[in-house]
Amino acid sequence: MLKQCKLCGEPASVRVPYARLSLCPKHFTEYVERHVRNTIKRYKLIKSGDRVVLAISGGKDSLALLHILNNLRGEVGFELSALNIDLGIRKDDYSLKAVQISEKYCRELGVELAKVDMKRDFGFTIDEVFSSNHVRRPICSSCGVIKRYVTNKVAVELGANSLATGHNLDDESAVLLSNYVKADIDLLVRSGPMLPSRGERMVSRIKPLYETSEKETTLYNFFKGIQHLEQKCPYASGASTLRLKEVVNALEEEWVGSKIALVRSFNKKIKPILAEHYSKNSKDIDLCEACGYPTSTKICSFCRLKKSVSKNC
Amino acid sequence: MLKQCKLCGEPASVRVPYARLSLCPKHFTEYVERHVRNTIKRYKLIKSGDRVVLAISGGKDSLALLHILNNLRGEVGFELSALNIDLGIRKDDYSLKAVQISEKYCRELGVELAKVDMKRDFGFTIDEVFSSNHVRRPICSSCGVIKRYVTNKVAVELGANSLATGHNLDDESAVLLSNYVKADIDLLVRSGPMLPSRGERMVSRIKPLYETSEKETTLYNFFKGIQHLEQKCPYASGASTLRLKEVVNALEEEWVGSKIALVRSFNKKIKPILAEHYSKNSKDIDLCEACGYPTSTKICSFCRLKKSVSKNC
Repeated sequence: MLKQCKLCGEPASVRVPYARLSLCPKHFTEYVERHVRNTIKRYKLIKSGDRVVLAISGGKDSLALLHILNNLRGEVGFELSALNIDLGIRKDDYSLKAVQISEKYCRELGVELAKVDMKRDFGFTIDEVFSSNHVRRPICSSCGVIKRYVTNKVAVELGANSLATGHNLDDESAVLLSNYVKADIDLLVRSGPMLPSRGERMVSRIKPLYETSEKETTLYNFFKGIQHLEQKCPYASGASTLRLKEVVNALEEEWVGSKIALVRSFNKKIKPILAEHYSKNSKDIDLCEACGYPTSTKICSFCRLKKSVSKNC
Repeated sequence: MLKQCKLCGEPASVRVPYARLSLCPKHFTEYVERHVRNTIKRYKLIKSGDRVVLAISGGKDSLALLHILNNLRGEVGFELSALNIDLGIRKDDYSLKAVQISEKYCRELGVELAKVDMKRDFGFTIDEVFSSNHVRRPICSSCGVIKRYVTNKVAVELGANSLATGHNLDDESAVLLSNYVKADIDLLVRSGPMLPSRGERMVSRIKPLYETSEKETTLYNFFKGIQHLEQKCPYASGASTLRLKEVVNALEEEWVGSKIALVRSFNKKIKPILAEHYSKNSKDIDLCEACGYPTSTKICSFCRLKKSVSKNC
C-alpha cells in the first residue's frame, strides 16, 4: 500500500524502491528531474556553452528528456535543439505518427526541430532495407547504423558539439549484460553515458537518462501530460534487447538497485581498466572514402548499407 | 517432444539445448563426462602427477564430480582423495546425513576420505556461529570463510597441491553477475575455474564443473544411480545466490548458451585485462599471526571468526 509523500505528506502515487521513497506526482516528477540533473553532473555530460542536439523519436524517453533538458538549459547554460528522422516505416503509419508527435511537442515547447526524411535526404527507407535481398544485418542492427550515422552527420552540420539520445537505464543495463556475455571489449569500452568525439566530423554522444528507468520516464510523461507515441516499432517485436530487459528487471526485482549498480560500477571501476588496455590496441578512426564521415573501415557501414539497398532498386 | 538419441538412435531422455543434442541416458552421462574433461583441459585445471583433494559435501555436484574424477584419474594420471567437513548443523540431522552419504559413496568407489569434525578439530560448529551474538557476518558468508580455510589447511596437511570443489556453472555465473553488479575487482580477479596458489601453505583451487550446470549434475546422478543429499542446507533458504541463479537461468532461457558464454568470455577476455591491472595494485599475501596460514590481514578471517564465537561460550 502506498503511503504519504515523503516530502509533502500528500497521498503518494509512486513508490521508488531503490531510493526508498513514496512520492506524490509533483514530487515524483521533481525527483526524476533532479535524478537526470545528477546524472549529467556525475558523468559531466553537458557543460556551460555546449550546443546540444537531442535526437527524438516521438517515444516516451526522448520526449521526457526533451522536456527535462529544455527546463535545464537556462540553469546549466547550453543551447538545445531537436532532431527527428522520418525512417519511412509505413506499417500502422508508424513513422508518420512519430514525426507528427515530435513536431507537435517541439512546437509546444518552442524548441527548434531539424527534420530528416530518409527517402528525401538519403534515398532509401527502413522499409526498403527490410525488403532488400542484399542486406545481411538484422533490421534492428541496420536501423542502429542509420540512426548513429544520420544523427552524427546532422549534429555536425548544425554546428553542435554534443548529441543527446533517450537511451535509458533499462536499455543500457540490458546492453551491458549482453556485452558482458559476449565479452566484446570494443563495445564495452564504447558504451556508457558519454562517448566523446574521437576526431573531426564527430560529435560527442551523451545519454542523460543513463540512470533513469523506463518506468520512470513513462510515469513522468503521464504526470506531466506529455503525449508520446505509445506504439512500438513494428519491426522490434521480439527483439533480443526487449527480452534482455526482462532479465535485468528480474534482477532488479531480486536485488533492488542492481540495475543502477550494474551500470554505475561498470563505469566507475571496470570500464577505466578496459579502456586503458584498449587504448593501446584500438584502431584509428579514419574518414570514409565515400562520404567523408568517421569510420574504422575504408567505406563506412552506412555507405555499405546504402549501396546494398540500392542494388534492389 | 524428445527425439531419438543423436548418437545411437535409441529414444532420447534429455535435451541439451546449448549443444543442440537430444541424448539417451548412456550418451548423456558420457556427454557430461566429456564436457568436464574438456573444462579441465580448456582451463588446464589438472596435470599429470597432481595430488588432488576433492571437497565433498554430500550434495549432487560434489558426488557427481567425485564419480567423474575417479574415472579420469587413470587417464590423466593424478592422485585423488576426498575431504568432508562435519559442520555441526543439527537441524533435520543435516550434517549427520551429509557425513554419512559422503562416507558411503567414498567407500563404494574406494576413494580415501579425510574427515574433519568442526567441533572436535576446531572447537566450534556452524550452529554455534549462527547463535553467536558476536559474529556480524551473514551465516552463509561465515560458512564460506570456514570452508575455504579448513579445506585449504587439510589439503596442505595431506600434501596435495590442488583442491577441487563442486562449484557448478549456475553458482559461478550467478556469482559473476553479482560481482559485475558490485564491480568488486578483487573478487572478479580471484574468481574463475582456477585460483592458483599464491605462496606457501596454500593449494590451488580448481572447479572442474565450472561449465557444467546444476541440471546436468542432477540428471547425471539420476542416470548413474548416485545417491546424494537432496536436502538443502537449513540456513540457505532465501540466500541471495539462490535468487541470482534464477536470474541467470532466466537469461539462459532467453538466450541459450548465455551462462557458459558469460563465464567463458569473462575468463578469456575480461579477467586477463583486470588481472594485469590488479597485479600492479594487489595486496601481498602474508601468514596469519595466530595460525600461520595465508591471509592479507594480520589475523586471518577464520581466526577472527573463531575468536568471536568463543566469546559466547
